[in-house]
Amino acid sequence: MKKIFMAMGSDSDWNVMKRGFDLLKEFGVEVEAKVVSAHRTPQDLGPYAKECENQNGVCIIAGAGGAAHLPGMLASYTTLPVIGVPVKGSSTDGLDSLLSIVQMPKGVPVATVGINNSINAALLALEILGLMEAPVKEKLKQFKLDKQKESRLKTGNLK
Amino acid sequence: MKKIFMAMGSDSDWNVMKRGFDLLKEFGVEVEAKVVSAHRTPQDLGPYAKECENQNGVCIIAGAGGAAHLPGMLASYTTLPVIGVPVKGSSTDGLDSLLSIVQMPKGVPVATVGINNSINAALLALEILGLMEAPVKEKLKQFKLDKQKESRLKTGNLK
Amino acid sequence: MKKIFMAMGSDSDWNVMKRGFDLLKEFGVEVEAKVVSAHRTPQDLGPYAKECENQNGVCIIAGAGGAAHLPGMLASYTTLPVIGVPVKGSSTDGLDSLLSIVQMPKGVPVATVGINNSINAALLALEILGLMEAPVKEKLKQFKLDKQKESRLKTGNLK
Amino acid sequence: MKKIFMAMGSDSDWNVMKRGFDLLKEFGVEVEAKVVSAHRTPQDLGPYAKECENQNGVCIIAGAGGAAHLPGMLASYTTLPVIGVPVKGSSTDGLDSLLSIVQMPKGVPVATVGINNSINAALLALEILGLMEAPVKEKLKQFKLDKQKESRLKTGNLK
Amino acid sequence: MKKIFMAMGSDSDWNVMKRGFDLLKEFGVEVEAKVVSAHRTPQDLGPYAKECENQNGVCIIAGAGGAAHLPGMLASYTTLPVIGVPVKGSSTDGLDSLLSIVQMPKGVPVATVGINNSINAALLALEILGLMEAPVKEKLKQFKLDKQKESRLKTGNLK
Amino acid sequence: MKKIFMAMGSDSDWNVMKRGFDLLKEFGVEVEAKVVSAHRTPQDLGPYAKECENQNGVCIIAGAGGAAHLPGMLASYTTLPVIGVPVKGSSTDGLDSLLSIVQMPKGVPVATVGINNSINAALLALEILGLMEAPVKEKLKQFKLDKQKESRLKTGNLK
Amino acid sequence: MKKIFMAMGSDSDWNVMKRGFDLLKEFGVEVEAKVVSAHRTPQDLGPYAKECENQNGVCIIAGAGGAAHLPGMLASYTTLPVIGVPVKGSSTDGLDSLLSIVQMPKGVPVATVGINNSINAALLALEILGLMEAPVKEKLKQFKLDKQKESRLKTGNLK
Amino acid sequence: MKKIFMAMGSDSDWNVMKRGFDLLKEFGVEVEAKVVSAHRTPQDLGPYAKECENQNGVCIIAGAGGAAHLPGMLASYTTLPVIGVPVKGSSTDGLDSLLSIVQMPKGVPVATVGINNSINAALLALEILGLMEAPVKEKLKQFKLDKQKESRLKTGNLK
Repeated sequence: MKKIFMAMGSDSDWNVMKRGFDLLKEFGVEVEAKVVSAHRTPQDLGPYAKECENQNGVCIIAGAGGAAHLPGMLASYTTLPVIGVPVKGSSTDGLDSLLSIVQMPKGVPVATVGINNSINAALLALEILGLMEAPVKEKLKQFKLDKQKESRLKTGNLK
Repeated sequence: MKKIFMAMGSDSDWNVMKRGFDLLKEFGVEVEAKVVSAHRTPQDLGPYAKECENQNGVCIIAGAGGAAHLPGMLASYTTLPVIGVPVKGSSTDGLDSLLSIVQMPKGVPVATVGINNSINAALLALEILGLMEAPVKEKLKQFKLDKQKESRLKTGNLK
Repeated sequence: MKKIFMAMGSDSDWNVMKRGFDLLKEFGVEVEAKVVSAHRTPQDLGPYAKECENQNGVCIIAGAGGAAHLPGMLASYTTLPVIGVPVKGSSTDGLDSLLSIVQMPKGVPVATVGINNSINAALLALEILGLMEAPVKEKLKQFKLDKQKESRLKTGNLK
Repeated sequence: MKKIFMAMGSDSDWNVMKRGFDLLKEFGVEVEAKVVSAHRTPQDLGPYAKECENQNGVCIIAGAGGAAHLPGMLASYTTLPVIGVPVKGSSTDGLDSLLSIVQMPKGVPVATVGINNSINAALLALEILGLMEAPVKEKLKQFKLDKQKESRLKTGNLK
Repeated sequence: MKKIFMAMGSDSDWNVMKRGFDLLKEFGVEVEAKVVSAHRTPQDLGPYAKECENQNGVCIIAGAGGAAHLPGMLASYTTLPVIGVPVKGSSTDGLDSLLSIVQMPKGVPVATVGINNSINAALLALEILGLMEAPVKEKLKQFKLDKQKESRLKTGNLK
Repeated sequence: MKKIFMAMGSDSDWNVMKRGFDLLKEFGVEVEAKVVSAHRTPQDLGPYAKECENQNGVCIIAGAGGAAHLPGMLASYTTLPVIGVPVKGSSTDGLDSLLSIVQMPKGVPVATVGINNSINAALLALEILGLMEAPVKEKLKQFKLDKQKESRLKTGNLK
Repeated sequence: MKKIFMAMGSDSDWNVMKRGFDLLKEFGVEVEAKVVSAHRTPQDLGPYAKECENQNGVCIIAGAGGAAHLPGMLASYTTLPVIGVPVKGSSTDGLDSLLSIVQMPKGVPVATVGINNSINAALLALEILGLMEAPVKEKLKQFKLDKQKESRLKTGNLK
Repeated sequence: MKKIFMAMGSDSDWNVMKRGFDLLKEFGVEVEAKVVSAHRTPQDLGPYAKECENQNGVCIIAGAGGAAHLPGMLASYTTLPVIGVPVKGSSTDGLDSLLSIVQMPKGVPVATVGINNSINAALLALEILGLMEAPVKEKLKQFKLDKQKESRLKTGNLK
């Protein structure tokens, strides 16, 4: 069965990444979260990427902060799509991780989502998975319709 | 046959987007480029997104500059993955289009690549396509190996 | 009777937008606030803009945060003046919504006010309405005089 | 007859402002451009604003660069809508004039458009005028339709 | 007797400006603080500047936030040195007021100090006054020596 | 006779600083320009500052780029007013030198002018000198009037 | 015995610098921390740098905030490696100290680490010391292995 | 004999890195430059770092642009000091590479120098080498004295 992998540079990123993880669980897809530090365990990056490929991985969601090298380095080891989540740190208001992730050189793409936005990383992963698995596609469409409905009801809260 | 769609806000974005388009052609995949302006033809966004879905689209690559709404608006109409290319304009050094594309609200993801980096948008599209079509996957692996080889030879140019 | 429309991307923007809404109420003009999400309900944008035109709308005040597409997308559907309020989010210190709103392409203007400054959006709407309705113009002049008087008394608070 | 006023801090801003001026001329509306320096002739600001009001002014378009005080200072003297055009200077990539114009305090709004975007300032002025003069409104609608048509033809240029 | 004038756009700036005011008091020089709003009372700027000149003013310290026009507008009315204090607001982390104050056009200088740094504005005023009044100069030298001594003792606090 | 000192970190700053130097010459005041590098000749900073004081200096204008330490270091050695000119370098669009000069700690002020704006540094120096020398004051007033007149004539160039 | 020197502009920087100081202590190397203010005691910079050289110093770690001149000025007095720690202040989110430290002119390098990251400054100092003292090198390798091990265990915390 | 290693992400970085390389050659130290791409040849990073250690390396100078991962990734593989040179790319004015290099997580330092400043990277490497080799130290001192002398002569160019 196809699987979505989620890596993060440190367990301190978990409070940000967990929201995306939980959404993936709600969608009922297989997902595995792991701490993989580009800077503390660089020798694990290649094997981890290989493992994701071998275990029927659809894509890797990678979150990191500051000089956020994890998403880009994983992308350098695999041809699976890598989705990067810039995690906001304590200075430069998130710009450092955003630029470190999105400004990859030609040849090695990272699909970057908004700062701290692991929800969108999860949805992007689901959209990719949905290309191959019709039930996921259906759930995504329903999710979009639900959000639409919710949104239309929110005018009632303006008081 | 599966197809990659490429949209841009104006024909002035073509000199940036063409590089990605050409790479897709080199890979031999089906690709169609179109000017779709979020601001001049908003009523075309929904039908265009629908068309991409109906024509066996894998994803939509969307490039735009300034208050770059095209990628996000297409994403709001479809559950196909949307890949955003921030096109650098004449002020704020590309930050405006980058932030307008990447900082999407929870629920509507855009897979953002680096400023002006349509090459990476194309490769990301190919990585997604490669999940479904083995020959594309193979070509991507070869592409990565070629780049690796090229890179290893470049030390010879340091003089 | 002429009316001012106020749209926002989510009810979470209401605490910012309410200040402008309340000022419009104080001025005794007709105003209607609504949640209209560019990304969750893109198909509602056109009909909403049309409705604003048909219901004797003077202008649309639109507030949004992050990749703030609502003001620009409404502007793409109407020739009513659209006033954009950048709502500050949790990263990049408000720059993302400011740039996403103000940097519109040539041809589709959004009248942008300061970050979180729905008061100024309301006053701008009143200035436009005041061109057509003398009593509003008079109230605005009085408002300016009142602020002038208040300001002149504030030296007394420097202690 | 109603009139649109255009002020700028220096004649060096004219190459930016002229594009908006020319568009207003094309629309056949009355428009008058003038150099009014907030810093060199501060005593002229009040009388100029008064004159704009007395001469049936609809709004004032004001362009300025750097510490761009002209739009805000004119707004402080009048209840006419003031539209600010940040003119890009030789450093900080346009951010200085954008922030100096848009970040006005509560009570004194400036309708800010994109950096160097005098075209959008002109269109905003026309949208306001169009609320009062049906032929202007009609021309604006036609302008929008023309741009729509043009945009739809631009795919032909992608080669 | 020579006097230092301190103006600020609103009484909300007082908590920042008071620190400089108190330092001037400690130095025993004559100082007068006043709320003078560039945007609410533009017609008061000229008379206030004139008054500062007539009352033997040495310089004007002016603090303001956001689109901080007060220092620059006072400078446009007088040939007294104007010292600008950028007051940090709730967005853009102080950059808006800094750029609005420091980026004045050629011909109308504002002596800008650091964000929220009214202490340095006061010291700059004292340095100017010290050129004319020897006792102030002496006190400044003593102040510098005191700070030097204090600084040298601070290693004791590193524990 | 009173004198204005102008220091710069390198002769490469001269093309920026010369404009201010020339203006001072036009005003007929005594001025001396010198290369004093904070980083290459740190031991010269103290003696130079002392010399400025001993030679009847009114103030020191100091221009520098990048990590622009010259103005701040001179200020740390003297109680003469120091005027800092941020010189724009080849990256970060002038922000590095602006922040390095203006963000001085409490206790050691630098009067900062706009990026590359040595003209305003010169005028600020003249304003300070004008407090002590009536003819300089008169010339400054005349300068202001001349600029006013020039500005009022510039509308003629808008064509 | 070789020694690492740590200087900071004020004792208020100690809460940031202490973390690096403590790490150096843990490594059992000789380290001495001192308050040396570039702006309050500029005349102490040269003697301090000389003292570091004479006392067998390996390098100087210097932390400072705002217009952070301390690292660069120490570097200007010595050929010992100087490691700069940008300390985040209350505005511009740390960018001011980062740019003031890192953007040194050609000829006078400062080895800059991340904002508030005195831990990395300490490790850099240890890496340099490790080139000369094998036991330090060994401890560093062990430190790296320990961090590696720790990192690999952190997946267990993702719940 | 001790050796300095210089790595860069691409041969397009050579025009920036060459200046530092040439300076190292002038100092007569052993230096070897190589293209090592973090993203194209990630598997080479570990072996390259090991090789630098084994070949008596003193430190590694690493230059890269955009999402500049090379310096940080090399640092993750070695306890040799790594000196990072942010190479300015075509957008964000160098901020992307600066932040990607300097904002490393605690535990893995990169000694960052100014944008494009390979000269300072070379000097930093020489300062480190100078701790172990007296002749290098002497040359550095002479270099500093030469620059001092040059700087003192530059006032002659101000005309």
